[in-house]
Amino acid sequence: MKTRITELLGIRYPIVQGGMMWVGRAELASAVSNAGALGTITALTQPTPEALSIEIDRVRSMTNEPFAVNLTILPTIKPVPYQEYVRVIIESGVKIVETAGRNPEPYLPAFKAAGIKVIHKCTSVRHALKAEAIGCDAVSVDGFECAGHPGEDDVPNLILLPAAAAQLRIPMLASGGIADARGMVAALALGADGVNMGTRFMATREAPIHENVKRQLLEHDERNTALIFRTLKNTSRIFRNAVAEQVLELERREGTTFADLKPLVSGERGKRIYETGDTDDGTFPAGLAIGLIHDIPTCDELVSRMVAEARELIHRRLATMMDKASNETACVL
Amino acid sequence: MKTRITELLGIRYPIVQGGMMWVGRAELASAVSNAGALGTITALTQPTPEALSIEIDRVRSMTNEPFAVNLTILPTIKPVPYQEYVRVIIESGVKIVETAGRNPEPYLPAFKAAGIKVIHKCTSVRHALKAEAIGCDAVSVDGFECAGHPGEDDVPNLILLPAAAAQLRIPMLASGGIADARGMVAALALGADGVNMGTRFMATREAPIHENVKRQLLEHDERNTALIFRTLKNTSRIFRNAVAEQVLELERREGTTFADLKPLVSGERGKRIYETGDTDDGTFPAGLAIGLIHDIPTCDELVSRMVAEARELIHRRLATMMDKASNETACVL
Repeated sequence: MKTRITELLGIRYPIVQGGMMWVGRAELASAVSNAGALGTITALTQPTPEALSIEIDRVRSMTNEPFAVNLTILPTIKPVPYQEYVRVIIESGVKIVETAGRNPEPYLPAFKAAGIKVIHKCTSVRHALKAEAIGCDAVSVDGFECAGHPGEDDVPNLILLPAAAAQLRIPMLASGGIADARGMVAALALGADGVNMGTRFMATREAPIHENVKRQLLEHDERNTALIFRTLKNTSRIFRNAVAEQVLELERREGTTFADLKPLVSGERGKRIYETGDTDDGTFPAGLAIGLIHDIPTCDELVSRMVAEARELIHRRLATMMDKASNETACVL
Repeated sequence: MKTRITELLGIRYPIVQGGMMWVGRAELASAVSNAGALGTITALTQPTPEALSIEIDRVRSMTNEPFAVNLTILPTIKPVPYQEYVRVIIESGVKIVETAGRNPEPYLPAFKAAGIKVIHKCTSVRHALKAEAIGCDAVSVDGFECAGHPGEDDVPNLILLPAAAAQLRIPMLASGGIADARGMVAALALGADGVNMGTRFMATREAPIHENVKRQLLEHDERNTALIFRTLKNTSRIFRNAVAEQVLELERREGTTFADLKPLVSGERGKRIYETGDTDDGTFPAGLAIGLIHDIPTCDELVSRMVAEARELIHRRLATMMDKASNETACVL
C-alpha cells in the first residue's frame, strides 16, 4: 500500500502499533515491524534510560525494519529524566518517535537535528493544528474510542478525523476504535493516511502480556470499558472490571480526590496484571475496539489479513455498490 | 448506486433523511426524495391523524418518488392515538415506515399486512437483533454521535456498525455523525448498507426551519452539542446553547427531577425556535455532524455531491492507496 504515512515512515502498510505502557517491548514491536507495519516500544516502560538503550538494541536484534519509540510526557510525582531518555533515543539512532501527553516542543529541536520523524498524539483538531505548527511530521488523532486518554471533548473519529483532515497539511494517523480492515478503510475514507492500533495489538500472540488478559479482551465487548477520572478532567478509558467500578463509585461521591483513587489505579498494579493475568488486581487501559476482537492472531496474520480484507472491501464491496445502478422502484410503488 | 437498502426501498442512492420532529414536513421530505434519496415526514409533527393524512397527500403532490413516514413511539403524558396514526399511514398507501422509540412489535402485523417496509431505529447491537427477530425489514443503527437519543452505552459508529453488521442479516442504515461522502463511504466500509442523516438535512435550503437555526449549525462545530438527561437514563444530544447549559447545571444538583427540567426542554419551545429563529429560546436536537457542516445546499446539491465525491473517494483515493506499493525504506533507515 502507499499513503503519505507509508512514505513518511518507510513502511509497507499504513498501520502503526501505538505506544502502550508495559506492553510496548521489543517482542511486540519487532513482530509488528516484521509484518510490514510500524512497531513501537514505550520509553517509560524501561526503568532507566540505560535500560531503554538495551531495549532498543533488542528490537534491532529482532528486526531490520523501521520501528518507533514512544515518549509520553506527563507531570509526575517522581521526576522522570526526560532529557536522558531523549538523549538515548537520539544516540541509539532511532528514526521515528511518537510523543504523547504534554506539548513535545522542548524536545523537537534535538529530534529534528537528528533527522527523527516525530508523530504527536492529539485528541482534538486544535491540538493537532498546534502539533503541525510546532513542526511535528505527523499527528496521531485519538478519538473518543481510544484506550487511555481520549481528552474531554468526547468526539468520536467519525467526526474528528474528517474535521482534522480538512485543516491539517501533515499526514494523520487515526487512533481509537480500529481493529480490522473495516476500520482501516473507514479511517482512510475519512481522511486519515493510516491507522494506529493499541488494544488490537494487545490481543496478538507476540504481545508480552499474560494470556488471561488477552482472553479478557476476546471475551468482552464494546460495553466493557469505563471512563474514569472524568471528575479530574483527566479522563481515561480502561477495562471495566471490579476495580474500575470501585473508582467510578468513589468518583460519584462528593469530595473524592486523586489521592483517594491513586492506590486503585497505580501503574504497578497494571504492570502486575499483565504479569500474573489477575485482571481484577488493578486497572489497565482498553479501547472500544475490544468489541471487534475475536481472535489472538500473530502480528503478521493480523496485518496481512487487514491488508487483504481492505483490498476486497475497496475493490469488491465499495466499487460494486458505487458502480451498479439500483433497481429503482423494483420493490416499492 | 446499488446496495441492499436501495433495493429494499426502491431509491437511487442509499441515503435516508431521518425522522425529525417539526422538521420532517412535506417540503423537506419531497426535496430529499426528488434528489434520489429517501425523504421522511414525521407523523407526530402533525397534531392529529387527519392532519397527517393531509401531509402525506402534500408529499405526494410534490414527488413521485418513494418516501417514508416516521412514527416515534414514546411514553407520553398526554396519550397519543398511535393506532389512529397507524391507520392513516396504512390507508394513505405509504410504503415505508421508520419506527423509533419503543418496541414497534404491536404495530408490525398491520404494517406487514399492508406490504409496508419497516425500518426500526436502534442504539445497540442487542436492540438491532431484537428488531430483526420481530420482523423489521431493516434497522437504522444510531451511534453515540447522533442527535436526539443515542442510548446509554456511548458506543460510536466506528465500533457499533461493524459489531452490528457481523450479527445482523437484515439491511442496516448507519445513523449519527454522517454529513458527507467521507462518512458515507466509511459507513459502507464498516458494514452499513446506507446512511441516515438528520442534522445535515436540517442545514439544507428546503428544511422548513428558520434560517438562523441553519446558520447556527453552520457556525458551530463538534464541540457545540450537549448530552442532557444522562441522570434520567434518557440521554439526549442537543445543540449546546444557554438553555442546554442550564439543564446540565440543574442535572448536577442533587435531587433534580424531570419536572424541574421539563419547562426548559419542552417540545413547544423547540418548535418555536424553528419558527422564530431565536435559538436560545429552548432546546433542539443537533448531532456531532454539526462539525462537518459548512454550507446550506439544496437537497439535490447535497445528495449529488455526496454520490460524486464517494465515487472519487473509492475509485481514486482508496483504490490508489491500495494498489500502489510503498517506496519502502525511502525516507527512513
